[in-house]
Amino acid sequence: MGNLGLQEALDGRWAHVRRAAREQLAGTHFVAVPGETLEQSRERISRLVRELPVDPGIAAGFPIAYGGGGDPGGSAVAAEMLAQLDLSLMVKAGVQWGLFGGAVVALGTAKHHDAYLRDIISADLMGCFAMTETGHGSDVQQLRTTCTYDPGTQTFDLHTPHEAARKDYIGNAARDGRMAVVFAQLITGGRRYGVHAWLVPVRDDQGRPMPGVTIGDDGPKAGLLGVDNGRLSFDHVTVPREMLLDRYGQVAPDGTYSSPIENDTRRFFTMLGTLVRGRVVVGGSASAATRSALTIAVRYGEVRRQFAAPGEHREIALNDYLAHQRTLLIALATTYGLSFAQEELVSALHEVQTADGPVDEHRQRELESRAAGLKAVQTWHATRTIQACREALGGAGYLAENRLPGLKADTDVFTTFEGDNTVLLQLVAKGLLTGYRDAFGSLDGWGRATFVAEQVREMVLERTAARSLIQRLVDAVPGRDDEVALTDRGWHLRMFEDREKHLLDGAIRRLRKGAARKRPFDIFNDVQDHVLEVALAHVDRIVLEAFVAGIERTADPAAKELLAKVADLYALSTIEAHKGWYLEHQRLTPPRSKAITAKVNDLLKQLRPHMAELVDAFAIPDEWLACAALREEPARQATMTAHDDELLATPVSA
Amino acid sequence: MGNLGLQEALDGRWAHVRRAAREQLAGTHFVAVPGETLEQSRERISRLVRELPVDPGIAAGFPIAYGGGGDPGGSAVAAEMLAQLDLSLMVKAGVQWGLFGGAVVALGTAKHHDAYLRDIISADLMGCFAMTETGHGSDVQQLRTTCTYDPGTQTFDLHTPHEAARKDYIGNAARDGRMAVVFAQLITGGRRYGVHAWLVPVRDDQGRPMPGVTIGDDGPKAGLLGVDNGRLSFDHVTVPREMLLDRYGQVAPDGTYSSPIENDTRRFFTMLGTLVRGRVVVGGSASAATRSALTIAVRYGEVRRQFAAPGEHREIALNDYLAHQRTLLIALATTYGLSFAQEELVSALHEVQTADGPVDEHRQRELESRAAGLKAVQTWHATRTIQACREALGGAGYLAENRLPGLKADTDVFTTFEGDNTVLLQLVAKGLLTGYRDAFGSLDGWGRATFVAEQVREMVLERTAARSLIQRLVDAVPGRDDEVALTDRGWHLRMFEDREKHLLDGAIRRLRKGAARKRPFDIFNDVQDHVLEVALAHVDRIVLEAFVAGIERTADPAAKELLAKVADLYALSTIEAHKGWYLEHQRLTPPRSKAITAKVNDLLKQLRPHMAELVDAFAIPDEWLACAALREEPARQATMTAHDDELLATPVSA
Repeated sequence: MGNLGLQEALDGRWAHVRRAAREQLAGTHFVAVPGETLEQSRERISRLVRELPVDPGIAAGFPIAYGGGGDPGGSAVAAEMLAQLDLSLMVKAGVQWGLFGGAVVALGTAKHHDAYLRDIISADLMGCFAMTETGHGSDVQQLRTTCTYDPGTQTFDLHTPHEAARKDYIGNAARDGRMAVVFAQLITGGRRYGVHAWLVPVRDDQGRPMPGVTIGDDGPKAGLLGVDNGRLSFDHVTVPREMLLDRYGQVAPDGTYSSPIENDTRRFFTMLGTLVRGRVVVGGSASAATRSALTIAVRYGEVRRQFAAPGEHREIALNDYLAHQRTLLIALATTYGLSFAQEELVSALHEVQTADGPVDEHRQRELESRAAGLKAVQTWHATRTIQACREALGGAGYLAENRLPGLKADTDVFTTFEGDNTVLLQLVAKGLLTGYRDAFGSLDGWGRATFVAEQVREMVLERTAARSLIQRLVDAVPGRDDEVALTDRGWHLRMFEDREKHLLDGAIRRLRKGAARKRPFDIFNDVQDHVLEVALAHVDRIVLEAFVAGIERTADPAAKELLAKVADLYALSTIEAHKGWYLEHQRLTPPRSKAITAKVNDLLKQLRPHMAELVDAFAIPDEWLACAALREEPARQATMTAHDDELLATPVSA
Repeated sequence: MGNLGLQEALDGRWAHVRRAAREQLAGTHFVAVPGETLEQSRERISRLVRELPVDPGIAAGFPIAYGGGGDPGGSAVAAEMLAQLDLSLMVKAGVQWGLFGGAVVALGTAKHHDAYLRDIISADLMGCFAMTETGHGSDVQQLRTTCTYDPGTQTFDLHTPHEAARKDYIGNAARDGRMAVVFAQLITGGRRYGVHAWLVPVRDDQGRPMPGVTIGDDGPKAGLLGVDNGRLSFDHVTVPREMLLDRYGQVAPDGTYSSPIENDTRRFFTMLGTLVRGRVVVGGSASAATRSALTIAVRYGEVRRQFAAPGEHREIALNDYLAHQRTLLIALATTYGLSFAQEELVSALHEVQTADGPVDEHRQRELESRAAGLKAVQTWHATRTIQACREALGGAGYLAENRLPGLKADTDVFTTFEGDNTVLLQLVAKGLLTGYRDAFGSLDGWGRATFVAEQVREMVLERTAARSLIQRLVDAVPGRDDEVALTDRGWHLRMFEDREKHLLDGAIRRLRKGAARKRPFDIFNDVQDHVLEVALAHVDRIVLEAFVAGIERTADPAAKELLAKVADLYALSTIEAHKGWYLEHQRLTPPRSKAITAKVNDLLKQLRPHMAELVDAFAIPDEWLACAALREEPARQATMTAHDDELLATPVSA
């Protein structure tokens, strides 16, 4: 089973990390257990997370000097493999080593690294990442928790002024965390310096809350039961001066503040930018869950039969129905595209975070934008696709024993955590509008709308990987669209970039026009739908270009040929989904638009025999799929077929 | 709060049933409890379902002679009100009184009614509706369970031949059911007479399985934890002759079969047709849940603020963002349309099921088609809208205490139970293709594709309620589309029916063409996407026409005016969603298509101040919403605003 060439193409640059995970985590030991209570799930995940292999998974993201792998890309891929296995396990690990450990690495300095990193890697020190507040999730620059320096005692006073400022949805808080990286407004000498982070003990050795710390429990959630999300409030908690994670801002004993970055906003978004890996991991994890769901639905659709064809005895396999193909195969093609785009994103993360010398600000902003856009698109794609897969299993898809309910419930939160998708897409659009010049990793929404409206520039497309190949393909397209073959890759690329460019140009025009005569809030708000479309069109192009680059890298000729067809389906089904726009802007004639629908159906027919092969290439161990129907349905179908003769031999009355 | 004229319009013909439910079920006693275990939930729902008021809710659907209300319409509305409260409670009650009790009423005769109906109404006899098998959910005509008559003993032998033939997903089976209506292939005298139903005891008085009956548990599910779904298998279970529910088929002591309906297929679908209320209730319940979710999201969006506008101190309410309005207000407008369409469907059900004399076959088929189409569209709308509402609450939407996880998980199964949505839409299309002549309530999918292809006729639109009004509006539209105001109702209606008619004509053409030269299976399968579009376009038109009729019935002028705007939004956002089709078929010019998007945004702006009023009119008691954030967020926002001055008075560094 499987197509090794295809699997190799998907496994990509960090294939060794994927292989290690499949081997180290083999069997059922780490697999999700359906129907657990909240307490059972928390207990199991808390235990399992400490049993995870350190190398290469957990250690990959940490500095080599502290026993880490110095491999940020590998660390993101290792997290994605955990997500392939169980999402509670991934999130719990992600909180401990990605968010908590990652913040200590990125925002702390040698004294923090020396004191804590080894215990963090070994999980002897479990921690939280306490940024979000009940009142401020998206607008983190406006957090209300304060941390005020007192030169008399040389300590900070950490304080939660009201309920909306309590830290909320904090993983590891309700049960296991001993310390937390707490984000708060730094105040010293009577002045605010914006949000900074401190390492703060929240529980003592017996697991009791530290004095002044109140710990709440977020209780039952839609999913991710194994993650103990909770609430933290601080009632004038004393924090020693050296517990400020001070890489980007220092407070001297006398209270003097200093920072390598003068501007508060710039500093804050630079700090956030160092934590971009979390967003990369969430997008990749969503796609991993999507691959699990598609594998289940496609394999089930191969064996499950319903309704006999006219004049035939045997019923028809679900995958033979066009409507089933329209749902599963198009989602599968998109998932392939997203997997290549994610691989490219992880590579970009790796290059930026392992580069010598000062940070290349432009590349950093571009990375943040890509991470934001691909996180939003992958998590929404996961939500839609897992739902479709659950429906594709009928009633069986509703039973916990068939895994899909868990996949659906666990991934749901991804659309709003590590950044609300709508807010993230605005960030992407803003980056495009300003050429990343001043967009930072900013989630500041509307605050500087006027500024953005004034700064928008003529658009220049940033090319992704395989720049020259893509330009060649685009340039090779003959002049008149109507004469170009529907499967011409250069034409696909041109259609995608044309949409992006035209939408962006239109947004620029409308913003400029609005800036002259509207209230600042309305300038942006009146075009919010248009701006979000720009971001989505941008991500579509990034995905197609990554798909093209991925095919180019594929060595195996058969795999390459199949991937090209899958890319055709991705490209044409995306154009079909936006045919309204293309027709409105006369990029498609009505006859050609109809021809695209016919061609999509034709591609579905061609790809039908390869459906199983395409999910096999995801190489997900059977045990990880944890789906009872996949184990039982083939035997049931066989027995039914054997028995059918008896019933069907009985003559009917009419 | 609230707009009584609007509420009156929505409460409609069975307003007294809705009012009774709001009063009788007031308070928190019946409200869903988040975070329960499976056992806790089953125990609570099992207890509560016996506490439900009999009159008018439960009794409404039963014959007056047995203490019922003889009010099928009222019974569907009462079920919808339970769904507004808690979906486990609705489904548990729906299994007992709708499916189980309803089958005994519809398929049984006086001897069954006399013996069981009073105990069924009082819940002294709890029962199951055992139709679906593991191997046959959609294709119920092909069930594999057999029930073979033996004239020697004058009993039937009920038997499950293999695992795929076990009854599955059966509500009330795992815990509470004492009897079951079991569907099986009737065999007598060596011949099959198709699927019939028997009343079969499955547990004894001590709750132990009866001899030969094996009862399994479907275990944890995605949602509806309070419903004890299970599996039933029969190992040559002896069933007395008189336990055959014999309204549509009798077996004489000597084994002679007789029926008022000769054709097996016709008889089977006539039997199914009497059970149409279940499908009506599921659609209505999905919309009830959608209304709960929208009420929560809209009220939260009124108080919750995020990101300050430029130069302003106070942050912006979520409902002020265009993207938020695009999500919630368009869903709200659609929900209004669906509520009017559901009201019309319930009326049609009521008229058909209370009519004197023989069944009007055409009206029965039309009712089945409407029920199927509106069930599919309402349940998908629920799935999408509840997801959007959960995202609109950010992280809070993921916590069980805020209700949305429960609404989402519980309604999910509606897309595939009481008929898989895709299969149901095929049924709708088939009815349109054949003018209901031979479509029956048939879910036979593809079996008679050739037949259908040969029988398709020129299309004649069936008008819904307010026929003459709608025709007047359509006729009043001036000739050229481009000159008609975008808010002209006649133009909306014409655009909707034009899409339906043209899609249907095209499907007919393609089927006829295919019939000449394709394999029977391919004739239909190659146009399956097109056929499903026909069905969706048909439902869209039904909804718009019901919306128009609902506005016409509305007495209060202010309510009427507001509803007209909501209908504009529904109509134009639907045309916008299908602009690709309209442009492809030159029903819209590119400039007019763009003008529609602008008009939708304009309507959103006009309706923004009415968002709260529009959900208030759903008149859902606060306790039923069971959302912690709605109780706590206003106070949090107030405290935060009061405290803000302090923090914001501290000067910033730069």
